[in-house]
Amino acid sequence: MCEAAAYILKDGKEELLLQDVDLIEPDGDDLRLVSIFGEQKTVKASIHSLNLVDHKVILVEK
Amino acid sequence: MCEAAAYILKDGKEELLLQDVDLIEPDGDDLRLVSIFGEQKTVKASIHSLNLVDHKVILVEK
Repeated sequence: MCEAAAYILKDGKEELLLQDVDLIEPDGDDLRLVSIFGEQKTVKASIHSLNLVDHKVILVEK
Repeated sequence: MCEAAAYILKDGKEELLLQDVDLIEPDGDDLRLVSIFGEQKTVKASIHSLNLVDHKVILVEK
């Protein structure tokens, strides 16, 4: 599988937001994350960077 | 492997930008993409959405 863990940058620190993320897409002004298990989270953030070989997505608060 | 293909949204259409992408990170005002083969591209864009199970990253022009 090719899912990744999504972290959010808060005060320069990476905080784990959701594991096994499949989808990340805009939801109005927010971002909606959906895991391969169907778990969903919506955050006021944008996608900062990706490291797919490390299975890591970094978001940054808006 | 867990790389993805990066597409850029231009006039509502997805255009393939780089395959086998590992890293995407900000480079000043731009985004730098690096493939698992070391190929690099820099674009004036931001990350719009991800579909990791489909190995797809969508960028949008700034």
